[in-house]
Amino acid sequence: MHNFTFKNPVKIVFGKDTIAELSKLIPSGMKVMITYGGGSIMKNGVYDQVCDALKGYDLVMFGGIEPNPQYETLMKAVWKAREEKIDFLLSVGGGSVLDGTKFIAAAIPNYDGSEWDIVAESLPITEAVPLASVLTLPATGSEMNAAAVISREETGEKLAFIHPQVYPQFSILDPETTFSLPPRQTANGVVDAFVHTAEQYFTYPSNAPLQDRWCESIFQTLIEEGPKVMTSPSDYEARANIMWAACMALNGIIGVGIPQDWATHMIGHELTALYGYDHAQTLAIVLPGILDYKREAKGAKIIQYGERVWGITDGTDEERIDAAISKTSKFFASLGLKSSLTELGADMSKLPSVGTQIDKHGMELGENGDIRGKEAMEILAGCK
Amino acid sequence: MHNFTFKNPVKIVFGKDTIAELSKLIPSGMKVMITYGGGSIMKNGVYDQVCDALKGYDLVMFGGIEPNPQYETLMKAVWKAREEKIDFLLSVGGGSVLDGTKFIAAAIPNYDGSEWDIVAESLPITEAVPLASVLTLPATGSEMNAAAVISREETGEKLAFIHPQVYPQFSILDPETTFSLPPRQTANGVVDAFVHTAEQYFTYPSNAPLQDRWCESIFQTLIEEGPKVMTSPSDYEARANIMWAACMALNGIIGVGIPQDWATHMIGHELTALYGYDHAQTLAIVLPGILDYKREAKGAKIIQYGERVWGITDGTDEERIDAAISKTSKFFASLGLKSSLTELGADMSKLPSVGTQIDKHGMELGENGDIRGKEAMEILAGCK
Repeated sequence: MHNFTFKNPVKIVFGKDTIAELSKLIPSGMKVMITYGGGSIMKNGVYDQVCDALKGYDLVMFGGIEPNPQYETLMKAVWKAREEKIDFLLSVGGGSVLDGTKFIAAAIPNYDGSEWDIVAESLPITEAVPLASVLTLPATGSEMNAAAVISREETGEKLAFIHPQVYPQFSILDPETTFSLPPRQTANGVVDAFVHTAEQYFTYPSNAPLQDRWCESIFQTLIEEGPKVMTSPSDYEARANIMWAACMALNGIIGVGIPQDWATHMIGHELTALYGYDHAQTLAIVLPGILDYKREAKGAKIIQYGERVWGITDGTDEERIDAAISKTSKFFASLGLKSSLTELGADMSKLPSVGTQIDKHGMELGENGDIRGKEAMEILAGCK
Repeated sequence: MHNFTFKNPVKIVFGKDTIAELSKLIPSGMKVMITYGGGSIMKNGVYDQVCDALKGYDLVMFGGIEPNPQYETLMKAVWKAREEKIDFLLSVGGGSVLDGTKFIAAAIPNYDGSEWDIVAESLPITEAVPLASVLTLPATGSEMNAAAVISREETGEKLAFIHPQVYPQFSILDPETTFSLPPRQTANGVVDAFVHTAEQYFTYPSNAPLQDRWCESIFQTLIEEGPKVMTSPSDYEARANIMWAACMALNGIIGVGIPQDWATHMIGHELTALYGYDHAQTLAIVLPGILDYKREAKGAKIIQYGERVWGITDGTDEERIDAAISKTSKFFASLGLKSSLTELGADMSKLPSVGTQIDKHGMELGENGDIRGKEAMEILAGCK
């Protein structure tokens, strides 16, 4: 196990009817900006629950934050928040709204014209407006971490930043808010959480048996509970288990002291920036591609995963690796995601720009830092 | 899954040579009281490492905190800390020193003559002196929680208190500090962590598959790594894995939203208060006794555990339960712990006072609150 530091100060408030606790969680007298997305919270009652819980607070609303939150949209919120002298930001929605809110929180205090550099140049953040979340879509783990992924239409970029100042003060996770999710978003969430776990698991063996097994536990939970919510969207227990698993998949605890990959995400981000595909859809295609391309370096972990998660014990090592990758791909497909770029109808002539972008950002991806633009294109050749 | 709130703000600094980072973790200019136990830190070099790392700080030493830290000893530290106007407490040692330090931290500011009530009456704690730890014995999980167990010789009591004010600000976990532990302490630590996990696992099924599997992962890690350190005390990787597993076993994360038992601990505490046996030794005897006594209520979880952790799949349910309990007991015995009160040479004539104490404290133990003095004595009858 490598040396590591771990600290995660986020307070999780989990369960039925917990939105009603908001007024105990946000100090009274604060001027609160509520950030949200496309308006689904208006239809499913969450907006009303939040407003009821915050009666007496001075509220400012900012809606319209997109999936893959756009810098251009978020800057409008920054200007509004500065003008309104906002004390607290409450993200009500999924990971995109929350990621966007983290950027807003960091951009409000200190910058003037250089806000994009928080993302592109990893500018140091010395202060941020306090933020919190009411999560309505389990997927990104953003509710219990200090990371955010922001897109910029103008430049076709999709980049991440991480800073302790943007940990949510608290996150409310009420599984009932997820009952009304469209099947595609539910499936995307399960795949996203699965691949977050995969990024921390599929590397080389590093003698960290507890971290290995905690990852395998998340895989198993998502494999068991995912199909349940696809057929029974109001199964509270299954929704709760997925919500908790997705939160644990990316709060840092399963990845301490071990190598991590994240090439699937970085390549996936480029595909989303290029084609506009759902984040999880890109992951569902790229992960099996990377496992296959790196089958030698990652073989020991793929075999362990195949055996412990899927019960694959027969065959040669190569056969077991093939079977484990195939099971993974089929699991994603069973939730309704496409398995190849062809199935998605991708314009292949545009694909080389993925490699170009990866090289432009100077990325050296994977646990060994050996995936650059060229290797990414070789991986994507296997994803067609 | 039940509703729950989870927050754990402790910073973990894990790995080789991390004691050297102390001066980055404690604000300069603070007057620090170093608390420790019987002096093993003088022999294994940890004391010197701490003093080297804190050169330039005003240090006050307080040694002699016992296993099962005694109120009478701790009050001496409280008086000294008040007199010396201590700003920060640094526990250097195992869980007993750290538990004692939590009590000292809580008792310094606010009490005069009523310090024991923090423990006995769960007095509200509004402030505490900041504290942190350098952990040298993985076992109690105290390094990443807000709980402490304190004993009082005068009254024969051993009681717990929990309060967010006594979370360590940080805990340094350097596996190398555990190389020199006597085998008995190493074994006790493994058993203690195992039983912490058991208290959160062996209840009734509550549809929390991730929590179940995370518990099983800790069991498996301890079962695999425990024997390694008994034969190779300087196996860094095995020591690291045990240190991390013990920390995860009682920082709250595996026990969210599920019923918990803790009867083994409460009955064990009474045995320690009565006979002076090591904490883990009492747990190693009482846990199998409770699993057997509650085999009907806990049967489903015992069978799941037997299958997933020990590979027990043959036989009737009763046989599988027997086999799982037997495997557990034999694992503790393989580490050198005794399996019965007779083996320990207990004076059975004193035993009934355990039941009396449990009733005196008004305890209703177990996940169903149905173990009082009478039932505890029935359990102990099976532990003779």
